[in-house]
Amino acid sequence: MGHRIPRDLRVTTHVCLTARALGANGLILADVVDTTLEKTILDVCQRFGGVFWIRMGEPWRQAVKEWKSTGGEVVHLTAYGMPLTETIETVRASPCPKLVVVGASKVPGEVYEAATWNVAVTNQPISEVSALALFLDKYLEGKEFSMEFQNAELKIVPSERGKNVLNLAKPEN
Amino acid sequence: MGHRIPRDLRVTTHVCLTARALGANGLILADVVDTTLEKTILDVCQRFGGVFWIRMGEPWRQAVKEWKSTGGEVVHLTAYGMPLTETIETVRASPCPKLVVVGASKVPGEVYEAATWNVAVTNQPISEVSALALFLDKYLEGKEFSMEFQNAELKIVPSERGKNVLNLAKPEN
Repeated sequence: MGHRIPRDLRVTTHVCLTARALGANGLILADVVDTTLEKTILDVCQRFGGVFWIRMGEPWRQAVKEWKSTGGEVVHLTAYGMPLTETIETVRASPCPKLVVVGASKVPGEVYEAATWNVAVTNQPISEVSALALFLDKYLEGKEFSMEFQNAELKIVPSERGKNVLNLAKPEN
Repeated sequence: MGHRIPRDLRVTTHVCLTARALGANGLILADVVDTTLEKTILDVCQRFGGVFWIRMGEPWRQAVKEWKSTGGEVVHLTAYGMPLTETIETVRASPCPKLVVVGASKVPGEVYEAATWNVAVTNQPISEVSALALFLDKYLEGKEFSMEFQNAELKIVPSERGKNVLNLAKPEN
């Protein structure tokens, strides 16, 4: 929410990359369409694989309403909310699909009411990027670290020093 | 490392806020001085308390060399490194002070050699902000969530809905 073009391009790109790398299924960019952002993320998906959808321009109220009307729940990450450590078990215990809301800029008060949970990843000024990362890690209990991304063109092979990248798209001669 | 003025101001601000909120003692901005960044972070420290130092403009080679010469170790976070889940216990087991290196832009190959460990927070394109957050969380084993920030002017009181902030600087009448 609250993405401002072009001001928030970099930070929101980091939000998207974090969501994708840590197991989210997709992302809704509320209220605005940012084709530069979309292109960057689709390019990463193309090269590094996996399934990650992006929807843009839906008014946030509508997106939240639709999510809830189909049985989903909404987790709003905010420094003002209840501590992650105290809420995560309750959130995880519910089997409903989760919509995680983060704000690039100030979020309307209405969001605090619409959310199923307002969750604080520390009660300190932090970043929506790190808040999302820590929430997903605790929600998925670290399972995100063993995910495989299907149909990748590029695959990084872990190295102690340097870079080792397999190009799976290019057949070896 | 690799902070570009003004291009990386927002993302590097998120790196600093994440470092502070999740228990780092301070931050070295390598090679450049960004007074706008410094002002933002010092302002957060003033309002929300705690001790967090910032040093700017030191050439990265010098900063890394000095860190190591006083018995410190260097953890370079990079998607090309060894998985966090496999390395974190070794890193944590060593009692030496840790310098965590993240790059805002491409990092010179020399850094991979200079690092004690090259650690990957997933082998996917992610964000230096979320990589730092997850590294600090695993390194500190969640202890960062119960930290107290001393001498704060503002203190957020966790709420299920809305915002509750205590102003400790203003004596009550």
